[in-house]
Amino acid sequence: MSLDEFGLIQRFFSRHAAGVVLGVGDDAALVAPTPGRQLAISADTLVEGRHFFPGTDPYTIGWKSLAVNLSDMAAMGALPRWFTLCLTLPVADAVWLEGFAAGLFALADAHGVALIGGDTTSGPLAISIQIIGEVEPGLALRRDGAKAGDDIWLSGPVGAAALAVQQRLGKLVLADAELAHCAMRLDQPAPRVALGQALVGMATAAIDISDGLVADLGHIAERSGLGAQICLSLLPSLPIHAARLATPDWLAAQLSGGDDYELCFTAPASAREQLVAIGAAKGWPLARIGSMVDGAGVAVLDAAGRPVSLARSGFNHFS
Amino acid sequence: MSLDEFGLIQRFFSRHAAGVVLGVGDDAALVAPTPGRQLAISADTLVEGRHFFPGTDPYTIGWKSLAVNLSDMAAMGALPRWFTLCLTLPVADAVWLEGFAAGLFALADAHGVALIGGDTTSGPLAISIQIIGEVEPGLALRRDGAKAGDDIWLSGPVGAAALAVQQRLGKLVLADAELAHCAMRLDQPAPRVALGQALVGMATAAIDISDGLVADLGHIAERSGLGAQICLSLLPSLPIHAARLATPDWLAAQLSGGDDYELCFTAPASAREQLVAIGAAKGWPLARIGSMVDGAGVAVLDAAGRPVSLARSGFNHFS
Repeated sequence: MSLDEFGLIQRFFSRHAAGVVLGVGDDAALVAPTPGRQLAISADTLVEGRHFFPGTDPYTIGWKSLAVNLSDMAAMGALPRWFTLCLTLPVADAVWLEGFAAGLFALADAHGVALIGGDTTSGPLAISIQIIGEVEPGLALRRDGAKAGDDIWLSGPVGAAALAVQQRLGKLVLADAELAHCAMRLDQPAPRVALGQALVGMATAAIDISDGLVADLGHIAERSGLGAQICLSLLPSLPIHAARLATPDWLAAQLSGGDDYELCFTAPASAREQLVAIGAAKGWPLARIGSMVDGAGVAVLDAAGRPVSLARSGFNHFS
Repeated sequence: MSLDEFGLIQRFFSRHAAGVVLGVGDDAALVAPTPGRQLAISADTLVEGRHFFPGTDPYTIGWKSLAVNLSDMAAMGALPRWFTLCLTLPVADAVWLEGFAAGLFALADAHGVALIGGDTTSGPLAISIQIIGEVEPGLALRRDGAKAGDDIWLSGPVGAAALAVQQRLGKLVLADAELAHCAMRLDQPAPRVALGQALVGMATAAIDISDGLVADLGHIAERSGLGAQICLSLLPSLPIHAARLATPDWLAAQLSGGDDYELCFTAPASAREQLVAIGAAKGWPLARIGSMVDGAGVAVLDAAGRPVSLARSGFNHFS
């Protein structure tokens, strides 16, 4: 980057943030953590062509780069506070940067998280964000806390983002309204941060759905030393006309489609009533989709209780 | 990355770290900060072809990726504690990963910092590291604290890394022993973390030399609202036979060569004796090279006090 380019970048990313002792512009940022809290720390990279299509709207890229990191905070029940941004750009294009910054800060402002530092360098387009949140010691929603007999919950329908990818690849055709819904889920996922906070002290384990329901629930099962059973008919409905989709694609999207960023979590049966009440009060479509069992792996059952065979365990849309 | 590749990567990067509540393998890591401290947070990306030559030994890349981040902690006077690693790789090659991890952990272990998370993705080779350190509130070494009349200090000779780059580009020839010294400075810089700690409460401002002495000292000057004057003859000597180098190259390397990761800092005259004593006790070649003055910008003077003209303000070796 030339000095002019650095100036351009500074213009879009230097903002004063409340609660930050020293922000962008020194060797490091300084922040004051809340006394008595633990830090939850996570980092994720998005690479062009791998995590988003070349030519994607920069607003979307900015939004999504932060969204996937906020989603990790949600899955820990952590309150997100600060993030750093490492941006690798082929060229410093003012229009692109303005769009990227608008998407990034729209979501950052909605969640009260502050950009405190990072760097910019020349190279193939990639975005690495590191996020830091706070959580009460001992109360984070880890993957390893599920107990046999716990209910398995999902925060909303999954599969829409994967269907948007399939449409963009020309592999299926959605109606306009359906595509609008699915594209929004893919491009501007809403991280379930408020839900994650609400689950602290109630859920026994949680994960966000980034790689697909079966794969991600599998992580809870494995880390908790248990198996998981979910029932297809209990999955929350997507606003898609299912009859138009081939069954294997439909199943794959719901069970293995990534990028939805809903939360999957476990909770004891004693928490059911409270979860239903919270869902109703907040308008969250929480669905109880199965239970944790002794054993290993994730079993998917149809309405008659028969195992559904999963042709593909992954649904890696860019491969 | 395939699942097999993820397994490979886990093999090299999953290590238990003391002082970490929950490490790699959940949605986020959990750590317990030291009560009463502020957090110093920084992030830097290295991109192949931009920050290191294609084909560079992976040990070197691992070492240097962490070194540049530790250097930011040094420049703040912060004690580095934890870091995340976002690794973008064209292919998951076991030999490459083993070398990279060896270099990374050699330096991490030397400084007692723990790798707590991050991610790995496919794409052009790039490494983003985010580092978190701790510092006493109000005592961080910022860039904006220099006062008129303060001495300007340098922690050691600068320019060797730039000379190694010039040799590798075929632009100059160094003797074998000289090259060995310069290459080590370029490939495995030693972040001045202990010095940074020692300067807390004594230095008024500090920065690490990553972009070149004049450029980086310029940041202290600008942020402190002052000018800086340094004297060429006071710069600590490089172990290079100067007579063999053309004067412009020689000047450019010392004044504008990046990648040395020495610290440049300011301190009141009253701290001179103590700084000399610390340097002697620790074997640090601290050199007093000039002083902060009213005005703006960085002036470089020769032994007779005449301004040296800087043909190039930057020495961007990969451009």
